[in-house]
Amino acid sequence: MYNTGKLNKISDVKGVTVGHHTVDQDAIQTGVTVVMPCPDNPFLNKLPAASYVINGYGKTAGLIQIDELGTLESPIALTNTLCVGRVHDALVSYMIARCKGDDHDLKSINVVVGECNDARINAIERQSITREHVAEAIADAKIDFASGSVGAGRGMVCHDLKGGIGSASRIVNMLDKTYTVGALVLANHGRGRQLTIDNRPIGLELFAHDKPDNLEKGSIMVIIACDAPLNARQLKRIAKRATAGIARVGSTFGNGSGDVVIAFSTANRLKDYKGCSDVKTLETFSYLPDAILDDLFSATVEGVAASVVDALQSATSVGDVKSLNDMLLEKKIAL
Amino acid sequence: MYNTGKLNKISDVKGVTVGHHTVDQDAIQTGVTVVMPCPDNPFLNKLPAASYVINGYGKTAGLIQIDELGTLESPIALTNTLCVGRVHDALVSYMIARCKGDDHDLKSINVVVGECNDARINAIERQSITREHVAEAIADAKIDFASGSVGAGRGMVCHDLKGGIGSASRIVNMLDKTYTVGALVLANHGRGRQLTIDNRPIGLELFAHDKPDNLEKGSIMVIIACDAPLNARQLKRIAKRATAGIARVGSTFGNGSGDVVIAFSTANRLKDYKGCSDVKTLETFSYLPDAILDDLFSATVEGVAASVVDALQSATSVGDVKSLNDMLLEKKIAL
Amino acid sequence: MYNTGKLNKISDVKGVTVGHHTVDQDAIQTGVTVVMPCPDNPFLNKLPAASYVINGYGKTAGLIQIDELGTLESPIALTNTLCVGRVHDALVSYMIARCKGDDHDLKSINVVVGECNDARINAIERQSITREHVAEAIADAKIDFASGSVGAGRGMVCHDLKGGIGSASRIVNMLDKTYTVGALVLANHGRGRQLTIDNRPIGLELFAHDKPDNLEKGSIMVIIACDAPLNARQLKRIAKRATAGIARVGSTFGNGSGDVVIAFSTANRLKDYKGCSDVKTLETFSYLPDAILDDLFSATVEGVAASVVDALQSATSVGDVKSLNDMLLEKKIAL
Amino acid sequence: MYNTGKLNKISDVKGVTVGHHTVDQDAIQTGVTVVMPCPDNPFLNKLPAASYVINGYGKTAGLIQIDELGTLESPIALTNTLCVGRVHDALVSYMIARCKGDDHDLKSINVVVGECNDARINAIERQSITREHVAEAIADAKIDFASGSVGAGRGMVCHDLKGGIGSASRIVNMLDKTYTVGALVLANHGRGRQLTIDNRPIGLELFAHDKPDNLEKGSIMVIIACDAPLNARQLKRIAKRATAGIARVGSTFGNGSGDVVIAFSTANRLKDYKGCSDVKTLETFSYLPDAILDDLFSATVEGVAASVVDALQSATSVGDVKSLNDMLLEKKIAL
Repeated sequence: MYNTGKLNKISDVKGVTVGHHTVDQDAIQTGVTVVMPCPDNPFLNKLPAASYVINGYGKTAGLIQIDELGTLESPIALTNTLCVGRVHDALVSYMIARCKGDDHDLKSINVVVGECNDARINAIERQSITREHVAEAIADAKIDFASGSVGAGRGMVCHDLKGGIGSASRIVNMLDKTYTVGALVLANHGRGRQLTIDNRPIGLELFAHDKPDNLEKGSIMVIIACDAPLNARQLKRIAKRATAGIARVGSTFGNGSGDVVIAFSTANRLKDYKGCSDVKTLETFSYLPDAILDDLFSATVEGVAASVVDALQSATSVGDVKSLNDMLLEKKIAL
Repeated sequence: MYNTGKLNKISDVKGVTVGHHTVDQDAIQTGVTVVMPCPDNPFLNKLPAASYVINGYGKTAGLIQIDELGTLESPIALTNTLCVGRVHDALVSYMIARCKGDDHDLKSINVVVGECNDARINAIERQSITREHVAEAIADAKIDFASGSVGAGRGMVCHDLKGGIGSASRIVNMLDKTYTVGALVLANHGRGRQLTIDNRPIGLELFAHDKPDNLEKGSIMVIIACDAPLNARQLKRIAKRATAGIARVGSTFGNGSGDVVIAFSTANRLKDYKGCSDVKTLETFSYLPDAILDDLFSATVEGVAASVVDALQSATSVGDVKSLNDMLLEKKIAL
Repeated sequence: MYNTGKLNKISDVKGVTVGHHTVDQDAIQTGVTVVMPCPDNPFLNKLPAASYVINGYGKTAGLIQIDELGTLESPIALTNTLCVGRVHDALVSYMIARCKGDDHDLKSINVVVGECNDARINAIERQSITREHVAEAIADAKIDFASGSVGAGRGMVCHDLKGGIGSASRIVNMLDKTYTVGALVLANHGRGRQLTIDNRPIGLELFAHDKPDNLEKGSIMVIIACDAPLNARQLKRIAKRATAGIARVGSTFGNGSGDVVIAFSTANRLKDYKGCSDVKTLETFSYLPDAILDDLFSATVEGVAASVVDALQSATSVGDVKSLNDMLLEKKIAL
Repeated sequence: MYNTGKLNKISDVKGVTVGHHTVDQDAIQTGVTVVMPCPDNPFLNKLPAASYVINGYGKTAGLIQIDELGTLESPIALTNTLCVGRVHDALVSYMIARCKGDDHDLKSINVVVGECNDARINAIERQSITREHVAEAIADAKIDFASGSVGAGRGMVCHDLKGGIGSASRIVNMLDKTYTVGALVLANHGRGRQLTIDNRPIGLELFAHDKPDNLEKGSIMVIIACDAPLNARQLKRIAKRATAGIARVGSTFGNGSGDVVIAFSTANRLKDYKGCSDVKTLETFSYLPDAILDDLFSATVEGVAASVVDALQSATSVGDVKSLNDMLLEKKIAL
């Protein structure tokens, strides 16, 4: 019901860019995707942020500090489950170097790395992502990034179809201003028969013969960016609403799915204090009152649902996992 | 996709009964509903339980002990926002008397009272519920209870239609056994245009001219009962899935909505120990492994969604708030 | 190590007052205590607030909304476990009347009622607190209130000695300003042998012959007020530090103890919006950066520990439970 | 008050071993420590576990799955803040290899890596820990491991003295059986003047001239093992009690301290199900009733406090940071 942003991507939120590096080498079908929350150094000017764990069967690193301090201070990287460590390591190195460039001697940093499990398609046990891949993904960051079977999305499977990266944005008018909320998902969750697109239970048509005991083994990572001024408590409320967005596409959040949401706002930036003596005044923060957040909540739900659908519609078939488009063609069903 | 239980109510879970007392006196349109989790005294044989707060703009009492100890030890009462205290008081008195009848001198009890705000229809500031009303609701507890504009549901409004009490149940087969999960909602949430029934966005048809700045002021209480053997950690996972059920009917969980879920299992019962010396052995607990819970999660989502729809379809118009059925007739729309 | 405020009470935080009503009638030894967070109506101008549950074997009502919205909008009442409901009810009535006096038609209110169990001394099953008692406690609210066996503290037992109400305050200098953090406890927790005052394990002297299987059955409610500008996230951090304060007096937080903390700040006040159209601008909030909160954390720990000790030192013996002072006299031990 | 185990270390809990690798090369003073929770493969037979975040200014990876599923399935590694990623990566590789040896094709694993910041002593920005270091720490795992300036403890500073690894154990008798609770800490937290050992505020003696604006920049990781049968919910209660143990040694949990606790029990082991069809029966779990946990809580508090003191007493001076023993000698103070 809300208008989309110009590109209908998370990068419609000014300053947000996304980069991919895709690895497509025989049995290795994986990658890394990086969400850059701002063009400048996020460690020196942190962003209000929150996380929400829908289902914690996941390995995302970096959440407890977000929850304690309410800030994001690094890019957010997404990759496969068994490469969280090396992507984490590479992201720390990147931030050390970047801070050095900004004349800051970095001694501590909370980097954020999310993951889904692409073992259905990818030889995940080979831990194939390298430091160079992470650097390439960062270098690739741009506004007009691709969705589908790219970056961390290369090997993902969603509702028994080819999944991957999806993104969308929605515009909300509040207090005579226009705000944008954008979402990006790494979609690797859901059972085939549950798939519902725009209120059409198309999974029942596509997977009429799916075995009923088919378990959900996926996961979904959701990143939400907005330029509306919100504090960390409010961003947690936003993050929680991603649940309804994913549910609209049919998921019931299976046991084995690691479903994690991270939300941040670009509207206020919070200085990194080098120590007590560096603090001279109170911090001042302006934000939208909770009383008028309903539209932002609804726009988030829409944006997350649209992101999952974008992942499905943008993905190309990989290995023996068919894309939605290829499956529709094969079954001769029009969406 | 799952079969319903015999009555398609929470009372399909053996031992669970529900009683109402409705107050319908001019400007006072309110009531109290009590969910009895077991026929025997729940304080003496507690039930594994968990709660989950979807959106905490609510006044439910009794959650922190459920979360700490993982047990429910009283009936669950539902009423209007400003009568939580007196229903709480009456429920404590009831439990003192009941325990006396069971030769137990009750000195401490965690009663659970949930609420939604019926001020749209009811003169809520009169705090009209009495101890007698609570006693009558308890006395009324039965398997074949009514849904709709009854009990605590008398004054509730849901998706801009008459809301109230709704219930449903679903059957799941696991490990060669049949288990029942039942839900009961006090539905007072949602915006009209968002209403979606069985994947049909009927709210757009019914409320084509609804003002866009209409805020959600409601709330929904969800009670989930099951006879599947689950521990408190697993019941929290079940409770969380109610979010997807409510989302399927269109809600995006507005700021002003107090959305609270309580889930319990009747399969294991836990003794109340009078003191240290009363404990002689380890406690033993059997439960379904998490690895096979997907169907129970999905059945919960279905059951909660069906409960909200039941509330809408069972409700009768009260005051100037029209029921779904009356509205469909008026607008000449077939469901 | 921090200086105390003028009275060394929570009321050193400007605007905070405390009232008691004590019931001392044979077997009924109980009461109600009310913390008024501000002289004006807290519903119309809410206070930033947070709660923290150390051990949830308790029945405190009103926490989930504090956590969701980060605000306190009512006085905080304390009483015995089985009177939570009727104190809740009376507080709602009080707020309806007070809002009417302020020309506000109250339709919803989140009142906060904490409790400890005084059944060791009080015939708790008689549910003796009435609406009039609550009104009298509110009318009694003042800066120079009493500690010890008064109000809700009348029947409480702490570290096997007479407990009850205790309070303290500490002064912290930050950014060239002076801030006050005050604490009030309803102390009903702890085992005798664990009692430690000012680093002296005096419980070992007083209770040398205490049976080792003596279980903790108490509870402690902690209210923390401060005039330092803090947001809700920061107040949760403050509330969590109460744990260390209680631990300094020896407690290990027994299973049966309901240990709950509520913290609020008087420095920012947040308007109650009547609806969407009532909101005209962003909300602006100034607060101390997290980077300099260490002293406030330490002062909170000290203030909470001092409050527990104040409860013990101010209490008079009631029934067969001896006060610390009487016990020291009897054992001929000097503190 | 409780007896210690044979070695007064976490390894008094049968099956638990600890290994270190220390890096001592000029400006590089750091290391890695690994807690092996059981001699066999923890992935194939998981241990009930829980985590608790006292203060989340930390980067520990692996907590959200522990909280969701209530199980630990890997060794727990500790290292410096900027090496979490590479230790994580090495631990994943170790588990892949180990599972291969056990004929299990590992596709997903939740490894746990905790950290404290040793930048005060160590050239942390060099990210010096390698895969080989992790392998050596694992190979070094034994019952009679060292405390102090070893492994991850090499560069840590605690209460302005040399900190590091500390450990202790306590024995509790329950239901005619003897249970052991063991703790291990990586102690890098606390301000000098707050240090309190056995109720003596020795920090005031040692740091009489400490500047008052000295901020806490440390962190503490706490690992608790026990052979008492406990479920995940109970282990979270145990983990929370570590707060009181740390508080006994004087900490007030400064803003900049990442204080994280992980607790596990060796008494029940939970099978890794390969899929739905692998599940044949209910899972059965025996555990101590909550009603008798008080002694276990108190023993945990004692054990954690003793572990911090052990870290201080075992540490040797490194660089310009003096050990407690060296400082006592210098100041001519006897403990």
